[in-house]
Amino acid sequence: MNKARIVIAGAGYGGMNTAVTLSKKLGPNDASITLVNKHDYHYQTTWLHEPAAGTLEPDRTRVKIADVLNTSRVNFVQDEVLEVKTDEKKVMLKEGELEYDYLVLALGATAETFGIPGVHEHAFTKWTLNGARQVKDHIDAQFANYNNVEDKHEGLLTFVVAGAGFTGIEFIGELSERVPELCKTYDVPREKVRLFVVEAAPTALPGFDPELVEYAMNLLESRGVEFKINTPIKEVTASGVIVGEGEEIKAETVVWATGVRGNPVIEKSGFEAMRGRVKVNPDLRAPGHDDVFIIGDCALIINEEINRPYPPTAQIAMQMAKTCANNLIALNKGSTDLETFKFDNKGTVASLGGKQAIGVVGSRKIYGGTANFMKKMIDNRALFILGGPLLTLKKGKFPF
Amino acid sequence: MNKARIVIAGAGYGGMNTAVTLSKKLGPNDASITLVNKHDYHYQTTWLHEPAAGTLEPDRTRVKIADVLNTSRVNFVQDEVLEVKTDEKKVMLKEGELEYDYLVLALGATAETFGIPGVHEHAFTKWTLNGARQVKDHIDAQFANYNNVEDKHEGLLTFVVAGAGFTGIEFIGELSERVPELCKTYDVPREKVRLFVVEAAPTALPGFDPELVEYAMNLLESRGVEFKINTPIKEVTASGVIVGEGEEIKAETVVWATGVRGNPVIEKSGFEAMRGRVKVNPDLRAPGHDDVFIIGDCALIINEEINRPYPPTAQIAMQMAKTCANNLIALNKGSTDLETFKFDNKGTVASLGGKQAIGVVGSRKIYGGTANFMKKMIDNRALFILGGPLLTLKKGKFPF
Repeated sequence: MNKARIVIAGAGYGGMNTAVTLSKKLGPNDASITLVNKHDYHYQTTWLHEPAAGTLEPDRTRVKIADVLNTSRVNFVQDEVLEVKTDEKKVMLKEGELEYDYLVLALGATAETFGIPGVHEHAFTKWTLNGARQVKDHIDAQFANYNNVEDKHEGLLTFVVAGAGFTGIEFIGELSERVPELCKTYDVPREKVRLFVVEAAPTALPGFDPELVEYAMNLLESRGVEFKINTPIKEVTASGVIVGEGEEIKAETVVWATGVRGNPVIEKSGFEAMRGRVKVNPDLRAPGHDDVFIIGDCALIINEEINRPYPPTAQIAMQMAKTCANNLIALNKGSTDLETFKFDNKGTVASLGGKQAIGVVGSRKIYGGTANFMKKMIDNRALFILGGPLLTLKKGKFPF
Repeated sequence: MNKARIVIAGAGYGGMNTAVTLSKKLGPNDASITLVNKHDYHYQTTWLHEPAAGTLEPDRTRVKIADVLNTSRVNFVQDEVLEVKTDEKKVMLKEGELEYDYLVLALGATAETFGIPGVHEHAFTKWTLNGARQVKDHIDAQFANYNNVEDKHEGLLTFVVAGAGFTGIEFIGELSERVPELCKTYDVPREKVRLFVVEAAPTALPGFDPELVEYAMNLLESRGVEFKINTPIKEVTASGVIVGEGEEIKAETVVWATGVRGNPVIEKSGFEAMRGRVKVNPDLRAPGHDDVFIIGDCALIINEEINRPYPPTAQIAMQMAKTCANNLIALNKGSTDLETFKFDNKGTVASLGGKQAIGVVGSRKIYGGTANFMKKMIDNRALFILGGPLLTLKKGKFPF
């Protein structure tokens, strides 16, 4: 008897949770499970605004894969996925290849630049643990430089966040909280620091309740954040960003947060995709590929209430992981009766730095301390689902 | 085609979670689901030490069934279960009867008296919402009486907790925290109040780590709690408890917390049981009854590591609910491939009142603030599983 070979590519919220669930529910004789990931750790993507702004130790957002995954049950391969050859049932890696009977693609997203010139060259675009550390070090260096350079040129301490979506707002929330402390540490007058959020859409946090958007903007403005709404970025240059009709904001720090697209491996492997995302079947398999599941940021599912795709979030990725694991178990048993994925929206909370947050839970709007506590609960819950109470204790957000 | 009739008896952790899961996963054409419960609310049994001691509004521990259960999918019957006639597939209620194809018995526990005389007559034994309110009102009345009676007799302000298990310790923890406030409110000198915990076993919190037991006892003693360990209660009388070799502790308040036994309906219905608990099959069905699941406090499952039954807890009841619901769905589909229940111990935390708690998570011992926060997380998690984030917001324990 040949055991099915299940390969899971990517150790983000989708891949990790699929691997952990399968490792618990499938016995060693049921299937062989392989997880492949670039790093030997998983990180909490939704927390990255904190280490990026320097308000949380980067290590806190990271979980060693071997700490939460039973590696005697799951074979872990540290390598980078380059392409999937679906007709040969092979995943091509930088340093090898993996054959599969069932494949789970959970490769996450990369920054969407909308073809705007200069983004990759001059902006920080990597929303990864390494990317976050880079942003943090750069910010610190800009402050450190201030009293070491003769020419205190415009832009040295100007920070531009491109995009007022969830990520952009959470990042500027942290950074605006930290600026007073940075000014103190590096002897920089507060008025030398400028913080911009530039957004092409007619509102910050599109899709969020307008009352909450106003609350967030007022709060951030009170910390000195300047919003440029309805203002498309035309180009990113070495000295700043060109917006609107050619106006330049001089800035040596541009953080790109205008949205994401699916991992390029998806398109490279020949899956039909929109911005790198595959419109998956209700059972989360790729159309025409009965042996390939696509979950997380690379999967596109339509919210039928508003006839638009669900945004790619950790929440939906974790729920997909559950359905994906159940369906793999069913397939492995020889069943064809697969579960239909249904998103169960538990709500959304955006942190604004400090003890501030806003959110929507069901039809209820929440602010301030309550929202902040909910955010911590959400963060701890993700850890709990992944690694149980011990991981929560180790890496969780406790109020002391 | 006849739809299967599923009847769930009891709306505690086991019954409620089974009902909620089934209501989400079975369509209206798959099965009819009926939940029967004495009250139109579920309550958090693990929180009852708080309203019983008067440190939490009783309503906070209660959840209206209609608030979390889709009552257009689940037929709710408010009535009391008296007996199950398994051969007729009927549940006999106080005011009627229910026919079933599949039955889930989740009827909870009652106090175990070990045949000690006077318990039912003179002690508080009902660990229910109504019982908790009764204890609280009685405590308040004893304090209120102090300055209204001539004869400040011994026992008026002596409070005895019988049993130093989980429930007894959590209750005395709350009460000892509240005593200073009660003394202030009612102008009672602190030294007039005595708090006893009487335990027949050679240690408090049997089964808990000795270091944690010592921490808990020291803390409680510092609040004036007197422990009588290794001291069996011989009788409860109108004026107190008789312990050891005939010594009497004069006490007008005796709270019974020596342990529980399964609901009497189990034995009355002819199931083979030990102290009201049925040793269920691995799929949680009663031996010899393919159509009856027994979960929660009435189910007995052996922890094979130590060859002793798992103690009845909310945690295990909630996990059983999940397996039970999955197995009902499988049976309803015509499958005979049922899931085996496996307890996944997430740890245990006992609150000690105030901001104090002790616990074990995996192999790690926790104390004080960390344990207290974990306890709140556990409490909130139970709400989250039952009713999602909105219920958590409404009834949860937030640190403000």
